[in-house]
Amino acid sequence: MSILVVGSVAFDDITSPSGNVKNILGGAATYFSLAASYFTQVRMVAVVGEDFGAEQEKVFHKRGIDTRGIERAQGKSFRWGGTYSHNLNEAKTDFTELNVFERFQPKIPQEYADTEFLFLANIQPTLQADVRRKMNAVRLTGCDTMNYWIQRTPRELAATLKLVSVLLINDTETKMLAGETNLPRAAQKVLAMGPQALVIKHGEYGATIFFREGAFGIGRHPFRAPTLPIDEVKDPTGAGDSFAGGFMGYIASQEDLNREVLKRALFYGGVMGSFAVESFGTERLQSLTREAIDERFQVFRELTHLE
Amino acid sequence: MSILVVGSVAFDDITSPSGNVKNILGGAATYFSLAASYFTQVRMVAVVGEDFGAEQEKVFHKRGIDTRGIERAQGKSFRWGGTYSHNLNEAKTDFTELNVFERFQPKIPQEYADTEFLFLANIQPTLQADVRRKMNAVRLTGCDTMNYWIQRTPRELAATLKLVSVLLINDTETKMLAGETNLPRAAQKVLAMGPQALVIKHGEYGATIFFREGAFGIGRHPFRAPTLPIDEVKDPTGAGDSFAGGFMGYIASQEDLNREVLKRALFYGGVMGSFAVESFGTERLQSLTREAIDERFQVFRELTHLE
Repeated sequence: MSILVVGSVAFDDITSPSGNVKNILGGAATYFSLAASYFTQVRMVAVVGEDFGAEQEKVFHKRGIDTRGIERAQGKSFRWGGTYSHNLNEAKTDFTELNVFERFQPKIPQEYADTEFLFLANIQPTLQADVRRKMNAVRLTGCDTMNYWIQRTPRELAATLKLVSVLLINDTETKMLAGETNLPRAAQKVLAMGPQALVIKHGEYGATIFFREGAFGIGRHPFRAPTLPIDEVKDPTGAGDSFAGGFMGYIASQEDLNREVLKRALFYGGVMGSFAVESFGTERLQSLTREAIDERFQVFRELTHLE
Repeated sequence: MSILVVGSVAFDDITSPSGNVKNILGGAATYFSLAASYFTQVRMVAVVGEDFGAEQEKVFHKRGIDTRGIERAQGKSFRWGGTYSHNLNEAKTDFTELNVFERFQPKIPQEYADTEFLFLANIQPTLQADVRRKMNAVRLTGCDTMNYWIQRTPRELAATLKLVSVLLINDTETKMLAGETNLPRAAQKVLAMGPQALVIKHGEYGATIFFREGAFGIGRHPFRAPTLPIDEVKDPTGAGDSFAGGFMGYIASQEDLNREVLKRALFYGGVMGSFAVESFGTERLQSLTREAIDERFQVFRELTHLE
């Protein structure tokens, strides 16, 4: 089966305690696509500028990713610069240049109409909803958002949340969206806004999936997956989008949509996030094998499973 | 088998968003003993004042805890007052009166000499080391400490760490003790200071145990146990000591000391911590059954284990 991701393709300048890089390929849709490409056929809808050339395109084509939905616009691609200090949990943004991304109006190629899985990366909620409404064959929609939209466009976001199956956000975003400081209570409030399931990403502590009652089968509890304790996090950029790529990509590779599949998907999300941070940019995500991924999946299992 | 705990018995005033209580039985050794009493025979060494009477003693005796090592001194018992705001992760201390605890010199009753398991709750490191040296039959020693001792008495603490098997501290304490912001690297540095294993408590995100190479058998990885997402945390006081009680109590109930036992113990630690926060003070810990504990152990398993 195939999955469509709608989101940003960008060029990043990144500084971390491990070094710095300039002008490397980044963006949510980029990290997502590369991570998901190890599980399923990936299609992209994004916009880039004239600085996006054959070199960048090759990164996607090498992984068999369908880039026909990447629109070329006049001007420069989205650019972002960020610095991580010793506390790698948060980046200080050095600059953001939206460039061609500012007027991004997602256009879905006719060839993508049969796509069964959809991931709405972090863009303006109304654009997310528009894309979802155009995709009639979709069986499951994943969605990301951020503080900016939660605070600035709450009504638009509420409309989008009614259209998505799984929302993937972090602890802070969950609490802000729910207006509630207790995380399990906040999760219940977010589920009442629309999604069938909520994935809360805890950074270095892993992630928890909460299910709406009766959604994806029967079950009493949420489910928690770990991350790998990593000695050297080189560059946390894209960890969340890589997580989403592993999570959604694995789901799209399965026939059934039940809780066990979503639980295993949560592990694969953690696995892809853990690879992403091992190198600057998408380097590690470009050179993986399914064997290496499944080996690390086993490590995640050993990390959490009793005999 | 039996376990000896050395630490504080106190009276607490606690305010949280769920209400407030005054003058309730608290202290690290109290929470530890009650939690461990569901797994093994518990012996206590502590000091109390004249305000500690039959009512308090009964709480321990009902759980079959041996209180012969609780010394009665002239004056008042240790008293602590704390307030939790909506962020329940940290208490604001309203007052601390050390009282008889200020001159605490642990005395080990002759009847305790054969104790095989020892837990050194959070007291001055030199007192911890003194107790450890007196206990010749001990097979495994658990130890807690805090920021105060890490900063004020680093040399004394270093000497104590050479005598303990398992250190149980939180993320911040681990990083401070190691002088290292990356948690897995910090864990390795702490293990190099003496302990065979290090349990890092992550609060609402569970706990991770790191093993020194070759300690408690062979294995490649650390191991992570969850906590239960709880809708209403009434009172976080004593969660860490209850965690230690479940962890050490389970270990003391087992014949073998291997990694699988320590992993299961990490789950039982989380289970007892999750019960502790459900009511003010030790209320919930006083009224449990082993069946309720094992039922929650199963919930923890379902929360983390794939089919």
